[in-house]
Amino acid sequence: MSEHTDRLSDAVVHRLPGYYRHLREMEREGIRQVSSTELGRRMGQTPSLVRQDLNSIGGFGRQGYGYDVTVLKNGIGNVLGLNHSHTMIILGAGSIGSAVARYPNFLAEGFTTLAMFDTDPAKVGNRVGDLTVQSMEQLGVFLTSRKADIAVLAVPAYAAKETAEQVVKLGVHAVWNFAPVDLDFEKDDVTVVNVHLSESLQVLSYLLEQKEKGAGS
Amino acid sequence: MSEHTDRLSDAVVHRLPGYYRHLREMEREGIRQVSSTELGRRMGQTPSLVRQDLNSIGGFGRQGYGYDVTVLKNGIGNVLGLNHSHTMIILGAGSIGSAVARYPNFLAEGFTTLAMFDTDPAKVGNRVGDLTVQSMEQLGVFLTSRKADIAVLAVPAYAAKETAEQVVKLGVHAVWNFAPVDLDFEKDDVTVVNVHLSESLQVLSYLLEQKEKGAGS
Repeated sequence: MSEHTDRLSDAVVHRLPGYYRHLREMEREGIRQVSSTELGRRMGQTPSLVRQDLNSIGGFGRQGYGYDVTVLKNGIGNVLGLNHSHTMIILGAGSIGSAVARYPNFLAEGFTTLAMFDTDPAKVGNRVGDLTVQSMEQLGVFLTSRKADIAVLAVPAYAAKETAEQVVKLGVHAVWNFAPVDLDFEKDDVTVVNVHLSESLQVLSYLLEQKEKGAGS
Repeated sequence: MSEHTDRLSDAVVHRLPGYYRHLREMEREGIRQVSSTELGRRMGQTPSLVRQDLNSIGGFGRQGYGYDVTVLKNGIGNVLGLNHSHTMIILGAGSIGSAVARYPNFLAEGFTTLAMFDTDPAKVGNRVGDLTVQSMEQLGVFLTSRKADIAVLAVPAYAAKETAEQVVKLGVHAVWNFAPVDLDFEKDDVTVVNVHLSESLQVLSYLLEQKEKGAGS
């Protein structure tokens, strides 16, 4: 399947988790087969886009039959790398880092948080969910004995770049970035995915603004 | 400017908060003018895309001079509706709702959280940041006396649809949705922006997977 997935566009990649979620829901509802029309209805997409997306990861459908829900769900799960578990460390024990530590869904989806670090001595030793906050100074020692696939970057903007560079130097090559900065690791083969919460809220503000203008005109 | 902004594509709208953030940083650094080349470098975009984006919201640039940082920042802020403040209520006092309540950046950016609600009697009365968790049963009474622009939906998936419908019925017409469900309010003139954290993590997992395949081949 890799010859297919090598060429996936960003747009397809960002839709795959949605397909996965809807297929999992259907599986729970006891649905065994699904058409591209029904899957498109749930996804808010056209049936032809659904067929195109699923063809791009290797098919899975049969003319006049549709898709087998479990087979397709597992196929998409494989493409997303959800068929094996991932380990995470959380850098920053503030509001966002603590929320990630406590969020039950990640563990259920195979993402295990190993440890949590902060530079603030007042936070070190605190319990957050099942974790005890460790000093950021312990990060190097920790990573000599445990392998973390993903670093969750939940530090303030001013500390983000330095902290990210530090954890990358220590061998973690994927950063889930909640800090409101752009990280530039192009040369270092580091994978970064951003969750810019303020920017999401600003998009909502824009849409509200447009609606009010529309209502007033 | 509204005749321009009516036609903004999704892609442009999603880039505007990034421009705004970079321009604010430049302003803090004391930079007064910026070229499309430098703005593109910071945004990770081509200069021609930058010019195209900024033309689409009404220009702001001058040939051979570039952009005035403060004028452009304020112009984009106006388009995003950041020139006035917004009020929010948080539905769900779990890990995500609490993180939103405690996140200092939102307040600094003009988004004020008025109140926080939960159905769980064990959580009602708890302090979260500056707020006291109120019973979800109080939501209707609360909204007769205070106007909330945005409802932050931070309840579990199974409660998301019903809670969203309830708050929309009570007159809140924008939902910032953290629940892993798709809300369908097309008919009701409700604005929804999703933050699907698990899906963002799954995109990261996909990218890691691709990198490992690439390294192995």
